Amino acid sequence: MNVNDSVTKTKFDNLYCCRESILDSLKRTTDVMFGGKQVLVCGYGEVGKGCCAALKGLGSIVHVTEIDPICGLQAAMDGFKVVRIEEVVGQIDILITATGNKGVVTREHMDRLKNGCIVCNMGHSNTEIDVASLRTEELIWEKVRPQVDHIIWPNKKRIVLLAEGRLVNLSCSSVPSFVVSITTTTQAIALIELYKAPPGRYKQDVYLLPKKMDEYVALLHLQTFDAHLTELTDEQAKYLGVAKTGPYKPNYYRY
Amino acid sequence: MNVNDSVTKTKFDNLYCCRESILDSLKRTTDVMFGGKQVLVCGYGEVGKGCCAALKGLGSIVHVTEIDPICGLQAAMDGFKVVRIEEVVGQIDILITATGNKGVVTREHMDRLKNGCIVCNMGHSNTEIDVASLRTEELIWEKVRPQVDHIIWPNKKRIVLLAEGRLVNLSCSSVPSFVVSITTTTQAIALIELYKAPPGRYKQDVYLLPKKMDEYVALLHLQTFDAHLTELTDEQAKYLGVAKTGPYKPNYYRY
Amino acid sequence: MNVNDSVTKTKFDNLYCCRESILDSLKRTTDVMFGGKQVLVCGYGEVGKGCCAALKGLGSIVHVTEIDPICGLQAAMDGFKVVRIEEVVGQIDILITATGNKGVVTREHMDRLKNGCIVCNMGHSNTEIDVASLRTEELIWEKVRPQVDHIIWPNKKRIVLLAEGRLVNLSCSSVPSFVVSITTTTQAIALIELYKAPPGRYKQDVYLLPKKMDEYVALLHLQTFDAHLTELTDEQAKYLGVAKTGPYKPNYYRY
Amino acid sequence: MNVNDSVTKTKFDNLYCCRESILDSLKRTTDVMFGGKQVLVCGYGEVGKGCCAALKGLGSIVHVTEIDPICGLQAAMDGFKVVRIEEVVGQIDILITATGNKGVVTREHMDRLKNGCIVCNMGHSNTEIDVASLRTEELIWEKVRPQVDHIIWPNKKRIVLLAEGRLVNLSCSSVPSFVVSITTTTQAIALIELYKAPPGRYKQDVYLLPKKMDEYVALLHLQTFDAHLTELTDEQAKYLGVAKTGPYKPNYYRY
Repeated sequence: MNVNDSVTKTKFDNLYCCRESILDSLKRTTDVMFGGKQVLVCGYGEVGKGCCAALKGLGSIVHVTEIDPICGLQAAMDGFKVVRIEEVVGQIDILITATGNKGVVTREHMDRLKNGCIVCNMGHSNTEIDVASLRTEELIWEKVRPQVDHIIWPNKKRIVLLAEGRLVNLSCSSVPSFVVSITTTTQAIALIELYKAPPGRYKQDVYLLPKKMDEYVALLHLQTFDAHLTELTDEQAKYLGVAKTGPYKPNYYRY
Repeated sequence: MNVNDSVTKTKFDNLYCCRESILDSLKRTTDVMFGGKQVLVCGYGEVGKGCCAALKGLGSIVHVTEIDPICGLQAAMDGFKVVRIEEVVGQIDILITATGNKGVVTREHMDRLKNGCIVCNMGHSNTEIDVASLRTEELIWEKVRPQVDHIIWPNKKRIVLLAEGRLVNLSCSSVPSFVVSITTTTQAIALIELYKAPPGRYKQDVYLLPKKMDEYVALLHLQTFDAHLTELTDEQAKYLGVAKTGPYKPNYYRY
Repeated sequence: MNVNDSVTKTKFDNLYCCRESILDSLKRTTDVMFGGKQVLVCGYGEVGKGCCAALKGLGSIVHVTEIDPICGLQAAMDGFKVVRIEEVVGQIDILITATGNKGVVTREHMDRLKNGCIVCNMGHSNTEIDVASLRTEELIWEKVRPQVDHIIWPNKKRIVLLAEGRLVNLSCSSVPSFVVSITTTTQAIALIELYKAPPGRYKQDVYLLPKKMDEYVALLHLQTFDAHLTELTDEQAKYLGVAKTGPYKPNYYRY
Repeated sequence: MNVNDSVTKTKFDNLYCCRESILDSLKRTTDVMFGGKQVLVCGYGEVGKGCCAALKGLGSIVHVTEIDPICGLQAAMDGFKVVRIEEVVGQIDILITATGNKGVVTREHMDRLKNGCIVCNMGHSNTEIDVASLRTEELIWEKVRPQVDHIIWPNKKRIVLLAEGRLVNLSCSSVPSFVVSITTTTQAIALIELYKAPPGRYKQDVYLLPKKMDEYVALLHLQTFDAHLTELTDEQAKYLGVAKTGPYKPNYYRY
């Protein structure tokens, strides 16, 4: 059961959680001010979208890199300049990776960063920044506090590397219990479903969580907000062609 | 070929276009000021999301109704109070429907609206507001300009109905050529695909546009923005398990 | 009585009204889409602040020019790149003046604009854009609709000039009655004060409106929003050193 | 020399710094998620404006209390509901004071707070929340970590009090060095001016910093942002009636 791609995971944990945890991670480790800073976010998936929205909201000027034209067009329509890393790497104050890819930030890129630039990774593994390339003789590593290393070039330039390139939100910020609850509820419900499912419902394959269960997870968490959903009338349910209790959307719906 | 649900339609036309056309429609017809106004948006799909974001950005206080707990939770996390229409119908200045449903705003609701409340529909048909229920003897209709009717209650209360409940963005605003271009390109490419497809690729069924074509439509439109996409290296493409020229995402990806 | 610089004029009419009327003016005249567009706003006073906030909110990438380092620093902290016009004039899609100055946009600048760039003025006179410099033989003027001229260069490049450089919000948009009410109430109260003032209260000089009256204008307009102010207790008023009925702030307070 | 009310203090330290430090303070102490939370901010001066903008940007629903109709009208136009504390005290998740006043949050208010509500002070002294009223026998104080106390009512309800009602941004967050630099530069320049001023320039009174110095402080800090100010031409300076090197604005200008 592929819980990682269920809507309650990707659209909540990845987006809303990262929107807050990127700020939290940077503040706790570096005390940086966001207003007026130039930031490059590599990747405009859910995580990148969250990071960009949060930083733009606090007065940063944000650039984005993308490989996918659809996500790139979303970034453009959301007000972010879509660039290649080479175009801006010498002018940015903060560099954040959120691609799920490897080798996105190379030694050549880091050689061109400004003095004081903060470098961190919000993606799903520690391969996005080529940290190994920084472990060479001419560069000095200075640990200034837990999870914060200064890498010092021979010309005294320093970059501030967070969590040695591992996921900065897991290493350097708290994860709000609300989002943990959404994600773990989704996992628990997936397990219950697998356990209870009659033989034959699932073959040897990877499945997305049935939409009904995604909706149930959301319903459980809505109560926190004193939110009141509207119920369909019989006539409306018939008009829409859905059951009154859901699921309410076709499987391809994107939210 | 279901072009209406392709990502370049739902995530661009519905979201980004409506974000602008709701403002445009309301201004051209009523000259209303958005700052400080209380607004109810019924439905938090792509259209509703666009309307809410635009109005919040200009200083309106926005409430949302939803039937779907997932969309409801998105509204909550985006900072909108999720209510039933009955809870706020007596205090709002603007009421916008964007549900795709019928009979969302009833005569009983409209009887309780404040004097001067603006009522309009951004959804996909003219059934969302029960306009027929307003064609009764005790209510006076006064056309104050094209597409704008005042409905006058016996106690002199007026509501301002736009486009007689038809789609206000099509009736009362322009649609930017850029968005039209995205949508029509998607349609044209779908037709070309159907024409050129070898026998057997498509059976008698409804298909979503192949992702590669969605990406191509986006690519064509990115050029307008002087946007520069990043190319995958061979090694990165292999790591991600995608072709260097795409498609870049699994079919269930939500953007 | 200098009503133009009273807080209820500068902080409401200039800021909140222009935030909406820049969008309205551009839509009604050109149907332009804001998402992804590059915009240059010349001047970051109240009018410029309103224009920048609105366009950023709808997904434009906004650059700012300023002569005043304080306003320039505000622009930077609000997330706008502070540039000289020469740096970006060849890449922008929309150029807006809001400086109160003259000759801000020259013929040389306009010679370098992109094909299709929209040029308009939100400042307080028609001197900001050197429109006279465009009335030369080699340029063709084509009126495409009221208030909209295409100026065509010999190489077929067109720029879209709104309202011949006069105030675009007065020429091409409506002004919401709410803001008109704030401004005219302020003017009326100023006249009443001058008429009723005992001899000697005002000498032959220019005065700002007494703060008490600014507060009164605001109070009258708050009622529209179902807003409930808090009253000071006797003890609190004493602690703050103000009368319970105001004025609440020293004269130098900036809001 | 009243440095506290200079524009580089009030419009930068109070607004831009608090916009970030309210988030930082709440995260470091409580790990709360902002999305969907209901917040009450008491006071809509510069500090309140910063808090409200930041929290709204991250998806909180924000209410405001005000005594001053001008600030109240600003809050309304910025999209915040202006309420009396009594109206919302039972439904909010976070309560923030930023008034400069005393006794704004009383024991009666705190008796009505929801279980788990976070209470903190961003104002200029520790009098805004009546913390003394919580030191009674029936309430149990439990220190859960530094600067964080749970106050437990007999019915098990807990509120989360930060920094015992002292300034939470000074107690529980870092203050970015950039803002400290602006404020201390302003102070240093004020001292230099007082030391160097010829006899008679200042009498025994309180003065605001001369505008020229405010502009100088801003100029020094703009360099961080790679910002490029525009220089006035001779003709423009004459038209505006200012010196080419400033000061650029009249003393009553509000920014």
